[in-house]
This record gives sequence, C-alpha cells and structure tokens, in this order.
Amino acid sequence: MNLSIVYSTQQTNFQAATFSGELEANLSKITGYGYNGVELAIRDPHLIELKELEQILHKYKLKVTAIGTGQAWGEEGLSFTDPDPDIRKAAIKRIRSHVPIAEKLDAVIIIGLVRGILKPGVSHPQAMDWLREALQQCSSVAKEHGVRMALEPINRYETSLINNVNQGLDLISDVGADNFGLLLDTFHMNIEEPNIEESIRLCGNRIFHFHVADSNRWYPGGGHLDFGSITTSLFTTGYTGFISGEFLPYPDGDTAAKNNIKYFQKLLQ
Amino acid sequence: MNLSIVYSTQQTNFQAATFSGELEANLSKITGYGYNGVELAIRDPHLIELKELEQILHKYKLKVTAIGTGQAWGEEGLSFTDPDPDIRKAAIKRIRSHVPIAEKLDAVIIIGLVRGILKPGVSHPQAMDWLREALQQCSSVAKEHGVRMALEPINRYETSLINNVNQGLDLISDVGADNFGLLLDTFHMNIEEPNIEESIRLCGNRIFHFHVADSNRWYPGGGHLDFGSITTSLFTTGYTGFISGEFLPYPDGDTAAKNNIKYFQKLLQ
Repeated sequence: MNLSIVYSTQQTNFQAATFSGELEANLSKITGYGYNGVELAIRDPHLIELKELEQILHKYKLKVTAIGTGQAWGEEGLSFTDPDPDIRKAAIKRIRSHVPIAEKLDAVIIIGLVRGILKPGVSHPQAMDWLREALQQCSSVAKEHGVRMALEPINRYETSLINNVNQGLDLISDVGADNFGLLLDTFHMNIEEPNIEESIRLCGNRIFHFHVADSNRWYPGGGHLDFGSITTSLFTTGYTGFISGEFLPYPDGDTAAKNNIKYFQKLLQ
Repeated sequence: MNLSIVYSTQQTNFQAATFSGELEANLSKITGYGYNGVELAIRDPHLIELKELEQILHKYKLKVTAIGTGQAWGEEGLSFTDPDPDIRKAAIKRIRSHVPIAEKLDAVIIIGLVRGILKPGVSHPQAMDWLREALQQCSSVAKEHGVRMALEPINRYETSLINNVNQGLDLISDVGADNFGLLLDTFHMNIEEPNIEESIRLCGNRIFHFHVADSNRWYPGGGHLDFGSITTSLFTTGYTGFISGEFLPYPDGDTAAKNNIKYFQKLLQ
C-alpha cells in the first residue's frame, strides 16, 4: 500500500502542508506513522540540499511521490497567467528548475496555484492561452528528463482557471504532451465534480497523482466522503501511484497524520 | 409539499439569485413551474411597493417564505462586524427595517453575509461580540412583531464568522432569543459539516428555513448530494417549512428552476 503525506521543506503559510520545519525529525515521524512516501512542497529548488535530502530519505525509506510548487505563487506571486510577462517568465523558469530534482527523485511535478488566478484586466481566453503555452514549454523540458507533470483542478473559490476534471482533460488535449496529466484532490472534487467516481473513471490513465482530504479538508474519516467507493474507482483506472494526504492539521498535524494512515490501512487491507 | 425558490426584487450581482427583474412576469413563471413559495432577496425594504407585491403574490398564490438580506452587504458593504461603528449601526437599522414587511408577509428574516467577514484589524472574539449584540438588538425588535430571524452558516471561503452548525448553535445559545434560529443550506453543509444528516438532527426545532443546492451549487440532481437522506433527516426534526431553492442559474435559470421542482416532486411524492 502506497501512502504518502505532504511535507513542506520551508516554513510556509499554506495551512494544508501538514508537516514543516526540521527535515529529519519530521521524515522520521512520517516513517514512524507507517507512511512509505512523502510529497515535498518546495518553494524554490535552489534552497534544497539535495544530497542531504537523499540521505535522509534513504535512511527513513521514504519515496518522494511528488513535488508541490504552489508556494512560488502563495509566497512570491509567481504565476503562468500574470499580466506581467516577466512574472510569467519567472514562473516558467521556476517550474523548469524543478525538473532536475524531480528526475533525481523520480517524482511528479505538481502544477497547483502556480497556474494563477484570473487577474483584473485579463480575459479568460487570454489566461488559458498563456497557461497552455507555459505548460507546453515546461512539459517539453520535463519530457527530456523523463519527468511527468500533473495539474490539479482546484475549486472555484481558489481560482477560476481549471476547476474540474472536464476542464483539465480539455487542457491536456490542448497541451498535447504525454507527460502532462492530472492530480486529483478529493476535497476539491467534492465541490466541483457532479459525480466523483465517474470523474475519476473519465481520467483513466491521465491520473498522475492523487490527493486525499475529506469533505471538510480534515483527514479522511473526518468528513462524509465515501473513500471506499472513491479508491475502488481510482484503482479501476489502473492507478498504482500513491494516495497522498494533503489536509488541514486538525485537531493537530500529528493526530491528523496518524488518523489518515489508520483509516487507509483499515480500508485497503 | 412546500417548495420555494429565490427571487431578487432588485437587479443584483449575486449569482445565486435565480430570478430577478420584472416582478409579475417572474412570479407568474415561478407559480407556473409548480412552486407555492418564493424567497425574496431584498436589499432595502424602502424600495419595495408592499401593496403591489401583496397583490401579485395573492394573484399567483405564492407564500413568501423568507427575506434574504445579503445584498445590503454585497452591494452596500453593510455588516454587523465592520470596524466602523456607523456601518454596524446602519446594518442593524437595515435589518430592523425588514421587520414590518416580514411581519406583514409572515416571513423569516435571513441573516446571511450581513453578519460580515473578519476585516483586517478586527479580532475574532471582537467580531463575535459585535455580532451577538447586533443579533440581540434585532431579534428583540423582531420578537415584538412576532417575526423570526435565521442565521445561515456559510462556508469558510465566504466568511470566517459562523461556518457550521456547531458554531451556529453556540451563537444561538449566546444570543438567547427564542425567535432566533438557523437557516441550513446544503451547498455550504457539504463543505462544512462532518455529517450532513447528523448536523440537521442536532439543530432540531431551531431550523427556521432550509436552502437546497447540490454539491456544485447547481439545482438538486446536478451534483452528488443524497437529498433523500437529507430530507428524511430534515422532516424528522419536525420541520414543516419550505424547501427553498437557492442555486446557480445553470444551464440557465428557467431550466434550473424546472429541474429542481421536478426533482423534489419525484423525491417527495
């Protein structure tokens, strides 16, 4: 069973990054809870000591499943759809800079909020053009290194650019790169998908990564989603990747991480 | 069967007000679709011609179930929790001004976003104090006229003041007025309640009004909520009021209104 959890390599103000701070202490805890994977939220790859990271990952037998990049948007305002061409260029450069580390770690690069929101004065078609071009550039570089990228549909309150699976699949078709797919997140799906299981089936082999949080963004079991039915649909698509926990640290990060793994160990045994 | 739908008496930019514009044409349509109730979104009662409204309501055999007041916030910025005391006073005055019309129409006054959001520089406890005081003042005036007020828990993305049933029931206890209760909305409940049916049961006879929209805020049947189970819980509390549709006008307002009533006529027959 492949279970991972989000860990932020720098301090962050993104609440759903369950663990952050001291690397070794936290990776040790994650392994101790029973996880075999970790999803790294990395704002800037230049701030990462790759050798040290690899040693610690090896020591704690953790596979890096994916690299989250949203902090570049949340903390530096970089996005693919900013009206300022310099900001768009910087965002593309930043995502490209994740490729060598993603290759080394055999991890998927996540395109979350770095796609941007619709800024005043920018039309939706214009933003989608910029987004498509940026994704084509980045996935082309990633492809040379055998790296895959996954865009996460995110609910309407956080962005108006790609909220659901249908929009995500249209974008995949427009980008036209076989190393570009989707990251599905059950919290967002609960709000946006008419039928969660059908949307999962619709994605087929384009699901490159999978996030779990319950309907209220607590650990699975904290809300009312039917994860039995959801994971059945997921595995029916042939997905063999990780189920990666990205949820709020309630009642606290440790309890949430433990409850999540307990839940899936029981569900998937 | 008591089914109603939201109608805005003034043009509004609030997307979920399904019908707006010409009064008679729209109330005629609402009756024609099979509704026996209408929920009026009123920004300012002084802009309402009550006599004309009553005549049209009578002609089309429509009961006014509730008066929505959120436009005072959305379009004028009035709220119970603004740091400016004049704005707080104006918000209280506005809600009090709904009391005579609510008495005349035997309708519940809805406290939605007029409660405000947490503005910069205002602490959560401070905002909750202002909110409690405002609700005490308004419900006291309402009580003299036999009018009930219902606060709607609203999801985390729209406000940080009262997102769920537990917080709503705590506030009811603090306000301490028997004519102050809750308006439950299934779209918000899907995001915020760990278990929708249990939260409904927990409210018991404090449910003064009930909104339906599906998980994606489309008409019921457009998403994945289990309205059979939800309405069973609702009726178990003894609720005899209206099921009031407040959803996005997709694919268009008329189709949504027709699909909603078709759905509940089948479900509740």
